[in-house]
Amino acid sequence: MALIVQKYGGTSVGSLERIQHVADKVIQAKQQGHDIIVVLSAMTGETDRLIQLARAIHDQPNPREYDVLVSTGEQVTIALLSIALHARGYHARSYTGWQAGIETCSTHKRARITKINGQAIQDDIANGHIPVVAGFQGIDSSGNITTLGRGGSDTTAVALAAAFKAKECQIFTDVDGVYTTDPRIVPEARRLPIVTFEEMLELASLGAKVLQIRAVEFAGKYNVPVRVLSTFNEGPGTLITFEDSSMEQALVSGIAFDRNQAKLTVCGIPDAPGVAKYILGAVSEKNIDVDMIVQNVPGVDQTIDFSFTVHRDDYPIALEVLKEVSTQLNAKGVVGDDKIAKLSIVGVGMRSHAGVATTMFKALGEEGINIQLISTSEIKISVVVNEKHLESGTRCLHSAFGLHLEHP
Amino acid sequence: MALIVQKYGGTSVGSLERIQHVADKVIQAKQQGHDIIVVLSAMTGETDRLIQLARAIHDQPNPREYDVLVSTGEQVTIALLSIALHARGYHARSYTGWQAGIETCSTHKRARITKINGQAIQDDIANGHIPVVAGFQGIDSSGNITTLGRGGSDTTAVALAAAFKAKECQIFTDVDGVYTTDPRIVPEARRLPIVTFEEMLELASLGAKVLQIRAVEFAGKYNVPVRVLSTFNEGPGTLITFEDSSMEQALVSGIAFDRNQAKLTVCGIPDAPGVAKYILGAVSEKNIDVDMIVQNVPGVDQTIDFSFTVHRDDYPIALEVLKEVSTQLNAKGVVGDDKIAKLSIVGVGMRSHAGVATTMFKALGEEGINIQLISTSEIKISVVVNEKHLESGTRCLHSAFGLHLEHP
Repeated sequence: MALIVQKYGGTSVGSLERIQHVADKVIQAKQQGHDIIVVLSAMTGETDRLIQLARAIHDQPNPREYDVLVSTGEQVTIALLSIALHARGYHARSYTGWQAGIETCSTHKRARITKINGQAIQDDIANGHIPVVAGFQGIDSSGNITTLGRGGSDTTAVALAAAFKAKECQIFTDVDGVYTTDPRIVPEARRLPIVTFEEMLELASLGAKVLQIRAVEFAGKYNVPVRVLSTFNEGPGTLITFEDSSMEQALVSGIAFDRNQAKLTVCGIPDAPGVAKYILGAVSEKNIDVDMIVQNVPGVDQTIDFSFTVHRDDYPIALEVLKEVSTQLNAKGVVGDDKIAKLSIVGVGMRSHAGVATTMFKALGEEGINIQLISTSEIKISVVVNEKHLESGTRCLHSAFGLHLEHP
Repeated sequence: MALIVQKYGGTSVGSLERIQHVADKVIQAKQQGHDIIVVLSAMTGETDRLIQLARAIHDQPNPREYDVLVSTGEQVTIALLSIALHARGYHARSYTGWQAGIETCSTHKRARITKINGQAIQDDIANGHIPVVAGFQGIDSSGNITTLGRGGSDTTAVALAAAFKAKECQIFTDVDGVYTTDPRIVPEARRLPIVTFEEMLELASLGAKVLQIRAVEFAGKYNVPVRVLSTFNEGPGTLITFEDSSMEQALVSGIAFDRNQAKLTVCGIPDAPGVAKYILGAVSEKNIDVDMIVQNVPGVDQTIDFSFTVHRDDYPIALEVLKEVSTQLNAKGVVGDDKIAKLSIVGVGMRSHAGVATTMFKALGEEGINIQLISTSEIKISVVVNEKHLESGTRCLHSAFGLHLEHP
């Protein structure tokens, strides 16, 4: 008998039929002898509907009132699931954020959890009841309703699992785990039985949107074992765990890709201190986030080229900004390309193995794919290629690292 | 400068356009120098939509969870109005029931307010802000969300007006006040500038549904002046006040009617103690509410006739029950009629004036309307007539008591 936190996302509670199905799944776990805390998102589309109401009144709705409004979405689902559990003869009890004692900072729309006063839930569990907690919401020290931002329900689940020292935090979603890459691109892609937190962080930030990145960080900080599972299919899902597990690590765990990138280069900048800061400062003033940044050593003419990538939507404004900056820096000019894609290989194993980059570049070269930019971290290597190579590149890397094979 | 509580009902906040209109009205009152506390209902239809969701899962939804669910309706409107007020440059702050400190008993779905801890709202008012409070909801001593039952937002408004000693509690609705009778029946019907609480209680319970009866009782208990006004038209509305106001009272203030009645009579019951209790006990066992009750003195054959009225929907079951009772009591038989209407004249003035009943019966007689049952209280006289006489009866009584004329 163990305590398990089960979190069900918006598609899992997207209709009354699905809520009934979730009730059955919760009871199944309960009947296996576990104590269960349930965390729910709002029904798919409900949060967007509420935001549209607010925006129809004012395009910048007051943040405190925005949170009061959108937090009703989860309050509806926790009540409905509790009704369904009662209808099956189980004593469930819904908890809004404030009833669950989820204290946050006062930053509306993206508050961070600071503390959980879990006595009421603790008592419920001790009595064999099923607490059903609204994800995504909390209360600040002045009694204002706050929300944690998009995907915040994952964070609520992980935080409760940490506070109550749950054996596992199960994130039920519409995919049955974390894959070596997107199965729509590579049919041979395999579900990973285990990934490390660090890999998950890289995979989440690179676009494998199964789990909110802040929830992953939170789980890492408090050593919470998290498992991603499908609400609709049975299966063990993917366990997100710590690197020092006894398992031998694969060199590379997965291939992530991102289509929504654009590349900009300021060419022929006279080499001088502070150039990078000057260029990125001008870009960030326009609230544009920069992803990969590459600067080479000065060439024979003592000038440098400075490249970076941005979200494709920000490309036109970034280009405008750079043209001005280029003139001010007396650079040769600006070139850009919004028909690019980013491919990344991720794996904690590459830390201790040389040659991973060589394998990557060789595979891409044999496929005739030209690499435009390279960026590396301890556990990932990202390259920018022409957009048309996204699928073939992902496939050849998946094969080159043997990801279609079971790990030894 | 005075404190005013303004309550807006479901039709008044039934769309985004109407919420914008309410924001304008609140600001108008604020600009006149008043402190304002706003109380809101859910958008028209929203509470019903939520109840249908619950009932689709289980026909007897758990009451605690039912309250968690339906209380989201008002949480949406308070947030939206606060956003609209902020957009106009006014500092508004929404309050759910628990944030407003509205404590209730633990009877879910029809809780009663026991106490208001109004410090937060008090501080807001002191700072010139506009508190926007969710009607219809509160919190019990264990921190559970409760609701006050249908029309409970009126009660919330009156309770806040009492707690903060407001000068006036303004109930904004889709009619512009309390009328001498329904203007759709009698075009000459006049809006009453003033009615007493007792008259309002009789008028509310007789079907003039402008104000929830529990709210009227609450207002009477705490001496809260309540005014019924239209959200959509300007005007002074109707002030509901105390009998001992300096105004001379009219004999009769209004004519109420009710179409949804049915009449049943057990005839020729041998006169014996406990007969009434026996009959009504059998009816109430079926959860049928009885309205008018009339029993005459025994006739020459030493038997009595016992009559009462019920809601028309309950007529078939009540008739079944009475047939059985009639046999048990050795009565002559049961007759019933569901084609009846109840007409009532209401007025505190009739207390101190004889002859009101005479005027009533004379007017109906001259119109050729036969009276089937009569029932009286201190400030009202009700008669049951054939349904076909409802309109002509209401018109002739309205005229007989001079209600189309301005009071002297």
